[in-house]
Amino acid sequence: MIYLDNAATSFPKPSQVYEEVLNCMKNYAANPGRGSYEISIRAALKIMETREEICQLFNIPSPFNLIFTCNATEALNIGIKGVLKRGDHVISTVIEHNSVLRPLYSLSEDGVEVTLVSVDKAGYVNINDIKEEIKENTKMIIINHVSNVLGSIQDIKNIGKLSKSKGIIFMVDASQSAGVIPIDVEHDNIDLLAFSGHKGLLGPQGTGGLFIRSGIKLKNFREGGTGSNSHFIVQPDFMPDQFESGTLNIPGIAGLCEGIKFIKNIGIRTIQKYEEELISYLLKELKKLSYIKIYGSDSVKQRSTAISFNIEGVDASIVGEQLNEEGIAVRTGYHCAPLIHDVIDTEYAGTVRVSPGYFNTLDDIDKLLVTIMKICKIR
Amino acid sequence: MIYLDNAATSFPKPSQVYEEVLNCMKNYAANPGRGSYEISIRAALKIMETREEICQLFNIPSPFNLIFTCNATEALNIGIKGVLKRGDHVISTVIEHNSVLRPLYSLSEDGVEVTLVSVDKAGYVNINDIKEEIKENTKMIIINHVSNVLGSIQDIKNIGKLSKSKGIIFMVDASQSAGVIPIDVEHDNIDLLAFSGHKGLLGPQGTGGLFIRSGIKLKNFREGGTGSNSHFIVQPDFMPDQFESGTLNIPGIAGLCEGIKFIKNIGIRTIQKYEEELISYLLKELKKLSYIKIYGSDSVKQRSTAISFNIEGVDASIVGEQLNEEGIAVRTGYHCAPLIHDVIDTEYAGTVRVSPGYFNTLDDIDKLLVTIMKICKIR
Repeated sequence: MIYLDNAATSFPKPSQVYEEVLNCMKNYAANPGRGSYEISIRAALKIMETREEICQLFNIPSPFNLIFTCNATEALNIGIKGVLKRGDHVISTVIEHNSVLRPLYSLSEDGVEVTLVSVDKAGYVNINDIKEEIKENTKMIIINHVSNVLGSIQDIKNIGKLSKSKGIIFMVDASQSAGVIPIDVEHDNIDLLAFSGHKGLLGPQGTGGLFIRSGIKLKNFREGGTGSNSHFIVQPDFMPDQFESGTLNIPGIAGLCEGIKFIKNIGIRTIQKYEEELISYLLKELKKLSYIKIYGSDSVKQRSTAISFNIEGVDASIVGEQLNEEGIAVRTGYHCAPLIHDVIDTEYAGTVRVSPGYFNTLDDIDKLLVTIMKICKIR
Repeated sequence: MIYLDNAATSFPKPSQVYEEVLNCMKNYAANPGRGSYEISIRAALKIMETREEICQLFNIPSPFNLIFTCNATEALNIGIKGVLKRGDHVISTVIEHNSVLRPLYSLSEDGVEVTLVSVDKAGYVNINDIKEEIKENTKMIIINHVSNVLGSIQDIKNIGKLSKSKGIIFMVDASQSAGVIPIDVEHDNIDLLAFSGHKGLLGPQGTGGLFIRSGIKLKNFREGGTGSNSHFIVQPDFMPDQFESGTLNIPGIAGLCEGIKFIKNIGIRTIQKYEEELISYLLKELKKLSYIKIYGSDSVKQRSTAISFNIEGVDASIVGEQLNEEGIAVRTGYHCAPLIHDVIDTEYAGTVRVSPGYFNTLDDIDKLLVTIMKICKIR
């Protein structure tokens, strides 16, 4: 199988990830912070090691600014629902994933004012459009760092600067970018950074996290036992316990630690460059095929690995099926980001999305191209 | 190491659990329901198989009544915060875990009326105490099936019958009982059953679930992409998608499936009987030691495996440390269930909790007993 759906989840993972998940399950998958015995302490130390690896990667000032979640969606919910209340205004974009749009829709029904600025056909937000929408009660700006549909990379550095200058909380959805593009929460003025653990960070599914800048007070989300303040029925108000109730996914987090160390060893710039090579080649070759409509930018500049396209006259889902028959895994349809399809005129059938990862090769891309050509010839 | 903290998380797991987690990660850890390619379908089928195994175990009418969560705490939050709103009354007990008490405390600050009925010194609720507290606006009764501190098993069958007769939603926290004691949501009239996947069900950490009876409408909790209705920004209102936003912990759920099949193969009654043997022996031997104060019932009747005790004159935490030095893992302190400590007069130091599991032996119990005697001799 040639796996080209890394925007959904990266596959395969580095072998160290598999090994550490197994090692953890077999040797130290106790409940950290709840027991004072050896394997419980070992579990706690591994969790702390992972926290520190993540902090180093994103330049997060302290491991106490970081919480583990079960996926990026939970992180986004904690941040969005934790900050916004009736009467607040929030600015986001039409290129967001449903993990942002659906919580915002819910909040809009509870009296939160939501403005979604548009993007151009290539998938880029114009910072002036955001600037124009800022009002007295604008509490938060939420930006999808990299689109899972078009691969467009937003200029978070300048949007972060703008947010800071206006005293607005800046939240970044790094589901597609964490581990793939360098992120620096200090340099980019990010207040809340939500990320997935099982995509670019190469960890197992069931992992994600949220950076919360000191001083930002969020409402509780999941409440319960934390192994701290156990004689009180009030949820602790300190980090990370406030948002980590119940038993964490210890083997998953242990695996995530190894995924991040793998990235660190190779170097995130090296990974980014390699993936750019893959998509640059794919874009170049796709452009040669007259019956292919590519969505988003056709250059690798400010572009990450997700590439959406359609074959003229062939429904995306049929392309997906035929690719599957040839052992090529891609995603087709709406990709959980409904509003961007209006912008790129794919509201009726969605797109075929190809998202290579670090373990793909130019040979994989060639096989994809040959199969696409075959599909078109048959028809 | 002798692991006696199965009430925190079961350890070790059956080897099939490790093998399936690894098999899943290496061969089919795609994003189910998001792609139409082979390994995505394989992931979806495994999730469905796990749903069906759980349904069979708890006699849940349909797999669409079951959602996966990242732990029992999330399941409890979804149920509790999904049902209760300002003006509603809820009855629960003082023996609950903080995963129930802390959400209830939060809701009480938002205008939900909370009544916590007491339990006797052995940890049992008197159903008449519940009956007396029922009012016009009583919306929900929440009962801890098995106490993680005292091991007391509540009479959920009769409390379920009472709830049903009054038209009150009956929620059971089965964190300690799922996989250890037979549970039948139909027979016991349970409307919401929250359970952990990594305790008695022998699955990996990062897993849990919630049964939601058809007809019970819950507010959304975590909202986002579901791979369904992807062209709408409104959270789907159908099950299980409504409560399963974002990527699930696929390897964890795959492992959980094998944990449940292991239980089914052995037979839950056989497991229960074996564990009763262990605690019966432990209770009998502990009772012989005059310097030991056992909390909760000292018979195995209506009692599960968690046993709390103290050694006269020795702080629980010191007992824990000394047991750890001898390679025995137990938990000490408050066990995240603060209010029960007032009932059993351990509000200042908590207890030593021993919780054997299916992989413990009588020999393990003997070693524990010998070490306890040694600790007392040294002092």
